[in-house]
Amino acid sequence: MTAYRSPWLDDDLDALRELARSFCDKVIKPNTEKFIEQHHVDRDMWNTAGELGLLCMSIPEEFGGGGGTFAHEAVLIEEQARIGDTSWGQTVHSGIVAHYLNAYGTDEQKRQWLPKMASGEVVGAIAMTEPGTGSDLQAIKTKAIREGDDYVVNGSKTFITNGAQADLIIVVAKTDIAEGAKGISLVLVEADREGFRRGRVLDKVGQKGQDTSELFFDDVRVPTSNLLGTEEGQGFIQLMLQLPQERLVIAVGSIAGIETALEHTLRYTKDREAFGRPVFGFQNTKFKLAEVATDARIGRVFVDDCIVAHLRGELDIPTVAMAKWWTTERAMVALDECLQLHGGYGYMTEYPIARLWADNRVQKIYAGTNEIMKEIIARSL
Amino acid sequence: MTAYRSPWLDDDLDALRELARSFCDKVIKPNTEKFIEQHHVDRDMWNTAGELGLLCMSIPEEFGGGGGTFAHEAVLIEEQARIGDTSWGQTVHSGIVAHYLNAYGTDEQKRQWLPKMASGEVVGAIAMTEPGTGSDLQAIKTKAIREGDDYVVNGSKTFITNGAQADLIIVVAKTDIAEGAKGISLVLVEADREGFRRGRVLDKVGQKGQDTSELFFDDVRVPTSNLLGTEEGQGFIQLMLQLPQERLVIAVGSIAGIETALEHTLRYTKDREAFGRPVFGFQNTKFKLAEVATDARIGRVFVDDCIVAHLRGELDIPTVAMAKWWTTERAMVALDECLQLHGGYGYMTEYPIARLWADNRVQKIYAGTNEIMKEIIARSL
Amino acid sequence: MTAYRSPWLDDDLDALRELARSFCDKVIKPNTEKFIEQHHVDRDMWNTAGELGLLCMSIPEEFGGGGGTFAHEAVLIEEQARIGDTSWGQTVHSGIVAHYLNAYGTDEQKRQWLPKMASGEVVGAIAMTEPGTGSDLQAIKTKAIREGDDYVVNGSKTFITNGAQADLIIVVAKTDIAEGAKGISLVLVEADREGFRRGRVLDKVGQKGQDTSELFFDDVRVPTSNLLGTEEGQGFIQLMLQLPQERLVIAVGSIAGIETALEHTLRYTKDREAFGRPVFGFQNTKFKLAEVATDARIGRVFVDDCIVAHLRGELDIPTVAMAKWWTTERAMVALDECLQLHGGYGYMTEYPIARLWADNRVQKIYAGTNEIMKEIIARSL
Amino acid sequence: MTAYRSPWLDDDLDALRELARSFCDKVIKPNTEKFIEQHHVDRDMWNTAGELGLLCMSIPEEFGGGGGTFAHEAVLIEEQARIGDTSWGQTVHSGIVAHYLNAYGTDEQKRQWLPKMASGEVVGAIAMTEPGTGSDLQAIKTKAIREGDDYVVNGSKTFITNGAQADLIIVVAKTDIAEGAKGISLVLVEADREGFRRGRVLDKVGQKGQDTSELFFDDVRVPTSNLLGTEEGQGFIQLMLQLPQERLVIAVGSIAGIETALEHTLRYTKDREAFGRPVFGFQNTKFKLAEVATDARIGRVFVDDCIVAHLRGELDIPTVAMAKWWTTERAMVALDECLQLHGGYGYMTEYPIARLWADNRVQKIYAGTNEIMKEIIARSL
Repeated sequence: MTAYRSPWLDDDLDALRELARSFCDKVIKPNTEKFIEQHHVDRDMWNTAGELGLLCMSIPEEFGGGGGTFAHEAVLIEEQARIGDTSWGQTVHSGIVAHYLNAYGTDEQKRQWLPKMASGEVVGAIAMTEPGTGSDLQAIKTKAIREGDDYVVNGSKTFITNGAQADLIIVVAKTDIAEGAKGISLVLVEADREGFRRGRVLDKVGQKGQDTSELFFDDVRVPTSNLLGTEEGQGFIQLMLQLPQERLVIAVGSIAGIETALEHTLRYTKDREAFGRPVFGFQNTKFKLAEVATDARIGRVFVDDCIVAHLRGELDIPTVAMAKWWTTERAMVALDECLQLHGGYGYMTEYPIARLWADNRVQKIYAGTNEIMKEIIARSL
Repeated sequence: MTAYRSPWLDDDLDALRELARSFCDKVIKPNTEKFIEQHHVDRDMWNTAGELGLLCMSIPEEFGGGGGTFAHEAVLIEEQARIGDTSWGQTVHSGIVAHYLNAYGTDEQKRQWLPKMASGEVVGAIAMTEPGTGSDLQAIKTKAIREGDDYVVNGSKTFITNGAQADLIIVVAKTDIAEGAKGISLVLVEADREGFRRGRVLDKVGQKGQDTSELFFDDVRVPTSNLLGTEEGQGFIQLMLQLPQERLVIAVGSIAGIETALEHTLRYTKDREAFGRPVFGFQNTKFKLAEVATDARIGRVFVDDCIVAHLRGELDIPTVAMAKWWTTERAMVALDECLQLHGGYGYMTEYPIARLWADNRVQKIYAGTNEIMKEIIARSL
Repeated sequence: MTAYRSPWLDDDLDALRELARSFCDKVIKPNTEKFIEQHHVDRDMWNTAGELGLLCMSIPEEFGGGGGTFAHEAVLIEEQARIGDTSWGQTVHSGIVAHYLNAYGTDEQKRQWLPKMASGEVVGAIAMTEPGTGSDLQAIKTKAIREGDDYVVNGSKTFITNGAQADLIIVVAKTDIAEGAKGISLVLVEADREGFRRGRVLDKVGQKGQDTSELFFDDVRVPTSNLLGTEEGQGFIQLMLQLPQERLVIAVGSIAGIETALEHTLRYTKDREAFGRPVFGFQNTKFKLAEVATDARIGRVFVDDCIVAHLRGELDIPTVAMAKWWTTERAMVALDECLQLHGGYGYMTEYPIARLWADNRVQKIYAGTNEIMKEIIARSL
Repeated sequence: MTAYRSPWLDDDLDALRELARSFCDKVIKPNTEKFIEQHHVDRDMWNTAGELGLLCMSIPEEFGGGGGTFAHEAVLIEEQARIGDTSWGQTVHSGIVAHYLNAYGTDEQKRQWLPKMASGEVVGAIAMTEPGTGSDLQAIKTKAIREGDDYVVNGSKTFITNGAQADLIIVVAKTDIAEGAKGISLVLVEADREGFRRGRVLDKVGQKGQDTSELFFDDVRVPTSNLLGTEEGQGFIQLMLQLPQERLVIAVGSIAGIETALEHTLRYTKDREAFGRPVFGFQNTKFKLAEVATDARIGRVFVDDCIVAHLRGELDIPTVAMAKWWTTERAMVALDECLQLHGGYGYMTEYPIARLWADNRVQKIYAGTNEIMKEIIARSL
C-alpha cells in the first residue's frame, strides 16, 4: 500500500514532529509509572516543554507563542498519542485555555498570561463541569457576582484536567443567575486567590497519571478585570466558538490512538506464536486487523479533511461532531479488538494496549458526550 | 452544516451532472417497472445514451469516447444511484469492458469496438465467474484453445451483467490449461458466433431489472486476432490492473446509495407522524439518522480521496479494497436503518428505500467479496 | 454437541410435525414459484390444510378446532419456516383471527365462524393498520358508527395479510370517534358485504407470495351482532391481550428461520470449494457460523422458555417484546451472514437463503416495530 | 414484568444467598480499596469464609466440603459479582482446584487437602498458562521429570490467580516431554517446597485487587505421590473434563455482572437529571437499557439452562463455549453502554460501573479466549 501522508504536513511540521517525538520518548515515557503513581506529571516538565517551544505553538509570537497553526498542535497530539500518554494535559493548556485567552482576552490579559503559559511558568485549566451538570452547561450553578470592582466567585467544579497543577483557571460562571445561557461569563481565577481550594485528584479507571480534580470556590474575590473579554454574558457563545477546536483535538488523538494500537498489534501478532504459527497467520486476526486498518485509514482521511478545513477557518460544528463521535467510537472498537488479539498480555499494563484501552474510553464522554454529538448532527439535517 | 462539495468536481462535471440527471429522471426512471418486468432495459436506451454522450465518457476521443476521466463516470454512477437504478449495466459497459479494450487492445481492436460501444451500437460484457468458481479466478475451467488461426472456446459462465444484451463479451479463459494464473487470457467473443448461447436471466433477490445471465460456449471459434492484446497468458495481470477502477465504481455507487437513502428517509420521517409527532421528532430517529449521515460524510470524503488518487493514477489495491468493503458494508447498515424508519412502507417497493435495500445487498459480494477485500488489506499490513 | 430438544415437545407433537412437514414439503414447496407469480396461495390449499387438521389446532374441539395448544401452532410455524414459506398466511388465520373469536366472541359468533375457519371454508384476516397509522393504533380513523341495528363501517386499511382471500375480516374501528383507545371496537365484516372492496396486492420487497392488501370500506353495513363480544370500546384491551401470542408467533418463526439458514449454510459451505478447500475450512466461515449457531441456540432456549410460559398463561408483554425484537434482529444478522457465505449464489432466488433474507426483513417491523418493543421493555424497567 | 426466578433455586439456596450477600457486603466490600492497594485480599478472609461454610460448598461432606452442588457455587458467584468484587479468587479455589482434587485425586490426596481448603487453611491455585503459551496447552514447556521417587519440576507460569497466596498449586507439566497432549500430567506443588518462587503480582488494567502472579519452579522436588491421580499423561483429558465447569463459572459471573450494571444504571439514570429531565427520560437511554435488559434476560435464561444441564451432568463443551463467549461479549457491550450512560461519573472508580467495566474485560480472554470458543463450536457443527 502506498504510504499515506496527511495533506497538511510540510517540512516545518516534520521537523516539529522529530522534536515532539524526542520529547515524548525521552521526557514523558520513562516517567509514565511515576506520573501514574503520583497522579500528575512533574511540574517542571511544563517548563522543559516551554523551553523547547512545545507549548502554545499556535499562539501568535507577539504573545510569546510559536506563531504556528493548529497543525502544530496536531503533530504534538499525535506524538503524545503514539506513546499512549494521557498524563500530560497539554492539549487543555495550549489547545484550549490559551486559545480562549487569545480569542477573547483583552490585550492586557493576553500580555499578562500567554507568555507565561508558553514558557510553562503558568499552567492553565478550564473549569466547566459541575458535580450536578455534565454536558448541560446552561444548568451550571457556580456564580461570579459583581461587588464593586470585584467578582465574588462561589461554586464547585469537577473533572478538571490540570486541576492539581493549574495556576490559572478559566471558570465558567453565572454573572447573572437569573439568566440561562445569557448569564454565563468566563472569569479568570488565579490559583493563589484566597478561598480557592483544590479537591482530591479523582480516581479514574484510566488516565491515571492525569490530575483530574475537583475545584472549590468559596467567596473567591477577583478584580473585574479578570472577566475574560470586556462584556458579561458572552461565556456561552465563547464556549460554542471554541468547541470545534476542542473536539478536533479529541478526534486527532483518537485516530492517532487507533494507528498506534494497530502498530503494536501487528508487531505482537507477527512475533507471537500460537498453535504452531504466528497469531497473525489466523484468518480471524487478519480480518480483524484489516477492519482496524480500514477504520484507521478512513478516519485519518476524514480527520485530515477536518484539519484542513479548520486551518482555513471553515470547520463547522456538525462536521466536527461527526469526527468526535465517530473516531472515539471506532477507537474503542479498535482498541478492544487489539487488546483481545494480545490474549492475556493485552490486560497487563506492561503492554501499551492495556492502558490505551482504558485511557481512551473517556473520549466518548468528555467535550460533549457522543450522544450530544448525535443531537448536534441531527439538528443540522 | 456547510455544504460539502467533492474536490474533484468542476463546472464541466456539473454540466454533465445535469445531463445525466435528466437522462436518469426522464429516460430510466419512468421505465423502472417495465425493466423489472422484462428483466432487462430497452435495447435502444443504450443508443439514446450513446447519442447523448453518456457512454464511454472516459475513453479517448480518438476512439469515439468522450475524452473525459473517471470523474465523468463517477458523476453518472452517482446520478444512477440517486434514482436507485440497477437495471442499466452501463458501469460494466463503459467503466470496465471499454477500459479493458482501451488498456490492452491492439489499435485495430480499439478502432473496431470502442466507437460502437460509445454509440451504443455494441453492448459489452465481461465473463469472469463460472458456476464452480466465485472470487477464485485461477480455478476457472473455460478454455480457449488455439487451433490454427482460431481459438476454440468451451465453457460456461454465470452472473454476467448485460448477459442478455451483450454484443461483445470479453471471456476470461485458459489458453493454457496446464497453468494457473499464467494460463489465463482474455478473448473477445462476439455474440453472433456459432456455439455461443445465452442462458436464462437469473432470478435474483434484487437488481431485478438487470439481465444477469448465464452464458454458454460450445466450440465457439474466434480468430486469434480476438485475443485481447497480442500475448497469451496476460489475462490475470490484466484483470488485476483493472480491479481498482472496478471496485471504485462500486464504492462510488454505494456511497451515493447511502446519501440517497438518507435524503429519502429525512423526507419521510419529517413528513410522517406517529404518536402525535413527526417520526423525526423521536430521539432514536435522530440518533440513527445522525449515524447514517456520519457514515455518508466520512465515506464520501474517503471515496473522494480515492477518486482523486485514481485520477492521478495512484490508487493502490489495498486502499480501494478498503473503500469497497467499507462502503458496501456501511451502505447496508444505513439502508437497513432507513428502511426500518419507514415502518411498513419501507418494505413496499413503491417506496424507493425497499429496492435500494435489496438491490445494494449484492455489492458486498461481487467484484471480490468483502472477505477477499480483507485478505487483500491484511496482506498489505 | 448433545442434540437439543425443546422442553415443550412430546410424542403427539412429534407426530404433528411429521404431518406438517409432509404438508409443507409436498403441498406448499412445489408451488412456491406459482404462489409468488400470482401473489397468493391457491385458495383450495386452505381446504386441504383444514381437512388434514392443520388449521385452528389450538381452538377447542367443540368449535371445530384441534383442541390443542400453542405448542401445536408452534410446530406448524417451525415447519413452515423450515421451507422458507411466507406465502401462506396461516398464522394470522389460526394463531390470531381464530383466537380473537375464541377469546372474545359470543357463543354464536364462535359457532358460526370457528368451524368454517378450521375447515378452511372461511379464511380470516384482521385489519389494524391504516395508511396513516403504523404501530399507533389509537390514531386509527376507520369508524363503525351505530345506526339502528347496524354498524356502518367507513375507512381504509393497509398491509392486511390474507387480504385478497379473506372471507371474514376483523376490523379495528372506532365506534366512538370522540375517544382514543376507549373508542376502539372490533367488528366482524364479511367479505361479501356491500361497500367492501379489496385494493391491490401490495408489491413488497419480500414475502412476494403473500396477498398483503389494502382494504376499503365504504358505508359497509353489518348488523350489531357483528361486534366482537358484547360491549363496545373493548377493542384496545382485546388487542393488547392477544399481543403476546402474536409476537410469540413471530419469535418462533424467526428462530426457526435462523436454524434453517444455518443448516442451508453449513451444507453449502461444506460442499462448496474455494481456493482449494471447502468454504467451511476458512476460519472466518467457522467463526461466523459459530456466532450464528450461538444465536440460534440461545434464542431457541429463550423462545422455548417463552412458549412454556405462554402454555401456562404466564407470558407477560415485556418478556415477549424481548423475544420479538431480539429474534427478529438476530435473524437478520444471521441471514445476512449466511447469504454472504453463499457468495453470488446467496443472491439468487434458487438458493433458499436469498428469499429467507428478503422475506424475514419485515419481521422487525410488523406486530409492533422493534422500536415499539424497546419502549415497552423500558417502561417495565 | 413478572419477576424471573432461576429454575434451579430453592429455599436452601435462598438461605445461602443471604449468607453470601452478608459476607460480600460486610466482609469484602468495605475492604475493596485496601485489597486494590495491596493487590490481594487479606489472608484471613479465606479462613472467615471457611468458617462460614462458603468454601468448597460443592465438595462432599466426607472431605470437609459443604456437600452441595454447583448451584451453591453459582449463588456465591452471583453475590460476588453483585458487589463487583474480583479480588477474591474463590472461584478458582473452590470451583476449580478443589474439583480437580475431588475428581482425580487419590483418597489420600483428597483427605489431605480438601478439608484444609474447605476451612481456608490452604489456598489453592492452578498453574496452566506459561509466558510463551496462552490457550495452546499442548505447547507448555514446564516439565515434571521423574527421578526416583520424586518429580523434579522446572518451568515458569504466568497469569496465576491466587498466585501470591496459594499454599497448594496444581501445576500443569509435561512428565513426558517427547509427547504433546499425552505427555501432560497434573502435579501438586506445595508453596513451601524448595525451588518454588512467586514472581511479582502482575499489574493489570482491571481486577487490581487480585493477586494474579508469575510463578517459578527451579528444580522443585515433590514426591511421586504428588501426581494428581495415579497415572501419568492424564493431564490433558483431566483439564478437558473440568472445562465446562470453569467456563460456566465465568458465564454465571458475566450474566450477574450485566444484571448488576443494569441495576446501577437504572438507579443512576432515574436519579440524575440532564437538560431538565431524568437521563432515563431520553429515548436513547430507554432503548439502550431495554437492549441491556434483553441481553440480561436472554443470557440469564440460557445460563440457567446450562446450570440445570450441568447439575444433571449433561453440559457439553460446545454448549458451554457458547455461554462463555456470548455472555462475556455481551457483558462488555452492556457495561460499556452503562458506563456511557453515567457520563463522566462512569469513568470514576467511586461509581461501581467504572471498575465493573475494566474488571470484566479479561473474561473474554481467560479460560480459553472467545476465539477458541468459536473454534470449539465450529468443530461441533
